Amino acid sequence: MNLPSLKNDVFLRALLRQPVPYTPIWMMRQAGRYLPEYNETRARAGSFMGLAQNREYACEVTLQPLHRFDLDAAILFSDILTVPHAMGLGLDFVAGEGPRFAHPVRNEEDVRKLTVPDMGKLEYVFEAVSLIRRELDGKVPLIGFAGSPWTIGCYMVEGKGSDDYRLIKSMMYSRPDLVHQMLRINAEATVQYLNCQIQAGAQAVMIFDSWGGVLAHGAFQEFSLAYTRQVVQGLVREREGRQVPVIVFTKGGALWAEQIAETGCDAMGLDWTASLGKVRKQVGDRVALQGNLDPMVLFGPDAAIRSEVRKVIDDFGPVGNGGHVFNLGHGISRFTPPDAVKALVDEVHTYSRRMHAE
Amino acid sequence: MNLPSLKNDVFLRALLRQPVPYTPIWMMRQAGRYLPEYNETRARAGSFMGLAQNREYACEVTLQPLHRFDLDAAILFSDILTVPHAMGLGLDFVAGEGPRFAHPVRNEEDVRKLTVPDMGKLEYVFEAVSLIRRELDGKVPLIGFAGSPWTIGCYMVEGKGSDDYRLIKSMMYSRPDLVHQMLRINAEATVQYLNCQIQAGAQAVMIFDSWGGVLAHGAFQEFSLAYTRQVVQGLVREREGRQVPVIVFTKGGALWAEQIAETGCDAMGLDWTASLGKVRKQVGDRVALQGNLDPMVLFGPDAAIRSEVRKVIDDFGPVGNGGHVFNLGHGISRFTPPDAVKALVDEVHTYSRRMHAE
Repeated sequence: MNLPSLKNDVFLRALLRQPVPYTPIWMMRQAGRYLPEYNETRARAGSFMGLAQNREYACEVTLQPLHRFDLDAAILFSDILTVPHAMGLGLDFVAGEGPRFAHPVRNEEDVRKLTVPDMGKLEYVFEAVSLIRRELDGKVPLIGFAGSPWTIGCYMVEGKGSDDYRLIKSMMYSRPDLVHQMLRINAEATVQYLNCQIQAGAQAVMIFDSWGGVLAHGAFQEFSLAYTRQVVQGLVREREGRQVPVIVFTKGGALWAEQIAETGCDAMGLDWTASLGKVRKQVGDRVALQGNLDPMVLFGPDAAIRSEVRKVIDDFGPVGNGGHVFNLGHGISRFTPPDAVKALVDEVHTYSRRMHAE
Repeated sequence: MNLPSLKNDVFLRALLRQPVPYTPIWMMRQAGRYLPEYNETRARAGSFMGLAQNREYACEVTLQPLHRFDLDAAILFSDILTVPHAMGLGLDFVAGEGPRFAHPVRNEEDVRKLTVPDMGKLEYVFEAVSLIRRELDGKVPLIGFAGSPWTIGCYMVEGKGSDDYRLIKSMMYSRPDLVHQMLRINAEATVQYLNCQIQAGAQAVMIFDSWGGVLAHGAFQEFSLAYTRQVVQGLVREREGRQVPVIVFTKGGALWAEQIAETGCDAMGLDWTASLGKVRKQVGDRVALQGNLDPMVLFGPDAAIRSEVRKVIDDFGPVGNGGHVFNLGHGISRFTPPDAVKALVDEVHTYSRRMHAE
């Protein structure tokens, strides 16, 4: 397979803390419902899974934000729940309610039945990666991703989103052995899944530990971080003669920044509650930082967006050997006016280019 | 007014970091829906507001958990939204949906109309405090409480609970002057409200900054912490010849522990993501700590509850001059089996008494 080589590698260089001319930016959920063209494609696809499982549609929506905005990376359009879906849990997206599993994991028998799925069942994802790489034609790097073992485990047990995680935490405090067994399987599946994405052409990968932050101190280390580390350690880190950087994002994880930095990842994603400058002092030069504008800033006027962008860049501090990838602290809201993103991207590039020149 | 004097002051002493024979415990939302007798009283009252606005009912449910469990403090049964209700926003509790305001604060005109309410409109709260004090007959201290200016502001603008705080954050990033104006009024109202509770007999007060943790680093300091500090600084701190300790609880606030400790409060509440030992090292002996068991632990078996209780107590570390009040990291879940609370309270008392004797 002959994949086009990269024209803009600023994002990859920043993740590896190599010199860059400006701070690169991409946005979590950048291919999403705030874009009318996304909603149009989704309507054609009929459903979320119809979109995610069709490589042409997945490619189309992945590229949409790049046509509008001067972003420095593309991210595969997919979902973290493709893995448990391939395990046979029966994923469905209920309108207005989000994801739901037909067969959640609720007891010992359910856990015993779990196995690492055949990666052939996820071929649609890897085909999308290859197609997107070809269509990107080297414009910017393509990010692959997966949920952390704990985060997909939350959905597998709860069966859907939750506001208290009562079912998985009940299991965790009653039968920790079952939860560990599920997380071991999730970790092995996630290693294989991300390595297949890398094999197919993903140039960086991100692990979304979206729900690690709901755990108690102590439980986070045991049930989330330990398995995220297993995934990081199992990944292929070089491909096409380049390093493939790994980003770990734990929502609400700033309290545990030093431990997350020790998983072996190249970069750590942070939400808006963190001070990039403070975390940088804690983790030193071990990892790059990605983040962390509050997505709600994009509901302010142009001047406020630009001022908040500068605060984040200033908080990160002197660019030195880089190591900052600008992003939102969480996914972009579906209600965001697309023009706000224009101001965001422009300010990140303009302001940071000035700082890098200094 | 001649109020009964205290028989058990372990809770107050721990808040003031004075020697105690064991670690005291109470639970956020201890008078609540997990108790069948609460649901019975609520059914008689007809509605949540019917319960909160009737001093006999409020007194009855405040005392219910003390009949069942050996708790070291009572907390006034009320709601943080009584203050905006008194401002004329029209609070209602919609079944299955939680609180809702008929007249939320959405624009400049709405903000201009806001004023500090006449405390006479909140007389039902102060009467409940006095009645509960008499009925408690000095068994344990009574805690009064209020929401932080930011937290009640979130509800005032959103009109109800929110998962992204889009309306108040949009206003905050577009018209920070309006949000500051609202927060100034909320702070002044909260000072008066808590001082009236203290005047009526509250022996400690707690400020719930339940939504401070949704703010970005920087915005938290400007829009939440600054006004919490104003409230703390405005409070009457002595009554009936005793200090009236002030507890500040910011959900998700452990990242900012040092700054919260500097508000002038006597104690800081922490959720389960914090390590009490780590926070204690950060804040030294400036404040006592309250927390921080994950309420979901109460869905585990007896042995797991006891083991997790010991972890929290061990994490706090050597008792020295005390300074630990045991609590959950957030309100108790309505689905909690009451017997789990028995194990919790017993283990806190038994295990900590051994540690205090050493």
